[in-house]
Amino acid sequence: MSTSFYEYYHGQTGLAVGVKAKLFSEQTEYQLVEVFETDTWGNLLVIDGMVMLSEQDEFVYHEMLSHTALFTHPDPKRVLIIGGGDGGTAREVMKHPGIRRVDMVEIDEAVVRASKKFLPDVGDFDNPKLKVHFEDGISFVQNVTEPYDLIIVDGSDPEGPAEGLFARSFIEACYQALSPDGVLSTQTESPWIASYHPSMNRVYGALESLFQYASPYLCYIPLYPSGMWSMICASKRSDPTGEATLERSTKGVPGLSGLKYYNPEVHLGAFALPDFVRTIFES
Amino acid sequence: MSTSFYEYYHGQTGLAVGVKAKLFSEQTEYQLVEVFETDTWGNLLVIDGMVMLSEQDEFVYHEMLSHTALFTHPDPKRVLIIGGGDGGTAREVMKHPGIRRVDMVEIDEAVVRASKKFLPDVGDFDNPKLKVHFEDGISFVQNVTEPYDLIIVDGSDPEGPAEGLFARSFIEACYQALSPDGVLSTQTESPWIASYHPSMNRVYGALESLFQYASPYLCYIPLYPSGMWSMICASKRSDPTGEATLERSTKGVPGLSGLKYYNPEVHLGAFALPDFVRTIFES
Repeated sequence: MSTSFYEYYHGQTGLAVGVKAKLFSEQTEYQLVEVFETDTWGNLLVIDGMVMLSEQDEFVYHEMLSHTALFTHPDPKRVLIIGGGDGGTAREVMKHPGIRRVDMVEIDEAVVRASKKFLPDVGDFDNPKLKVHFEDGISFVQNVTEPYDLIIVDGSDPEGPAEGLFARSFIEACYQALSPDGVLSTQTESPWIASYHPSMNRVYGALESLFQYASPYLCYIPLYPSGMWSMICASKRSDPTGEATLERSTKGVPGLSGLKYYNPEVHLGAFALPDFVRTIFES
Repeated sequence: MSTSFYEYYHGQTGLAVGVKAKLFSEQTEYQLVEVFETDTWGNLLVIDGMVMLSEQDEFVYHEMLSHTALFTHPDPKRVLIIGGGDGGTAREVMKHPGIRRVDMVEIDEAVVRASKKFLPDVGDFDNPKLKVHFEDGISFVQNVTEPYDLIIVDGSDPEGPAEGLFARSFIEACYQALSPDGVLSTQTESPWIASYHPSMNRVYGALESLFQYASPYLCYIPLYPSGMWSMICASKRSDPTGEATLERSTKGVPGLSGLKYYNPEVHLGAFALPDFVRTIFES
């Protein structure tokens, strides 16, 4: 077998990834979870036909969703990850030595099972700071009693089980579950794909009305549709592009090295939006 | 006809663009030039099987290759474009009212002919400031007598007729053809594609050894392989990310409005490179 996996995202426009074998396939209660061995990207996790990550490019998404938010917070200790079943976001978060506890709430245990087996370097599941909950993230957030410093929404596209992660009620519950310095980061799809603009706009509107800061930013993900991916960093008190945040990023934290994408210049540069992108969020 | 055009760039990994019809196809002395009508990207120019631009995304490439270099120069008047037969780079350059003369040297008249007919909004060929030469850009540069303020290398990939645009001898000739404040910009492929790393590295090395500044930068081009595209802005005197450049960009020039991608924040942000990209250029 040497052919391509295709994800069409915009008419007949899409992405082809060369695959050598299908390693895993399971239709769960929630979605179709697949892992392919590819020609040049390592193993590839696909959910409901949409690329989630490859071993070769996953560092971009995970570094940018986590470190941007972590350095925005003055002293993050408790982190909640909604989704993120592959483990990559938790891995990046736990590189910060100040982190004491990470709760990861993944609705579908098959994602974690497949990732542990076929993406063994993505997660850091044996880390004692990490507690994995196989639950619905939306109800988990509504029942938080001890607030978090950081909530990272690491879900898939707003179709299927992740749809609720783009709803205002969920974002309000996240706001309530955050401490007074709380920071939230979430992925918000590609600005190049018109069908996602309403979701991007809705999430931004909710964050912008609740948090003091709601700043969209961008990163390059080669196996996501169009290669341009947007995220939002929302914060109750500290400015994601403020001087204190950039100072923390520049100073770094002990033990955080070997990043391939995130650095202090990239942190600031990612928030520089082309006008056509700004318009989508703010319209 | 409703199917996809495929460009495989990395093993069996590639891009699919939905096409409705083939509008133009000509095997010239130099290359195969094609134009397709697409489903959602307007018309698409393809050379030797490689996407050059679509009407919907061309603004990114053309704004970023031109305005970044134009604002780096303190007062650009004379511009030489090598390649750029679709006319988009010249169009952006001529938006700056200080520009008096643009020489565009396109080796293949079929590219201009196809673009005028099927990409009518991309070029501004009737502008009296523009002079089109159907010649080999490499020998044109070697025979320049009146120096240019700006040279923009707008060629295709380093395979086929554009191969010489990645050679040190060509870059040395460009340096000689530039005035004392001269600035050069060139496209340097995608950092995600390993087969292009030697060319990227060679061009950067040549620019870096000749010019005071040689600064790689990035932009998001959804129909180019991986969606991440690199360019280099090289300059004899003024720093592409220096205060004077950013002041000029922030102040703008009369009549330059309606840009969709380039703005002063994007100018600076584009030069913030992930470590894995910096390594490719500097190794």
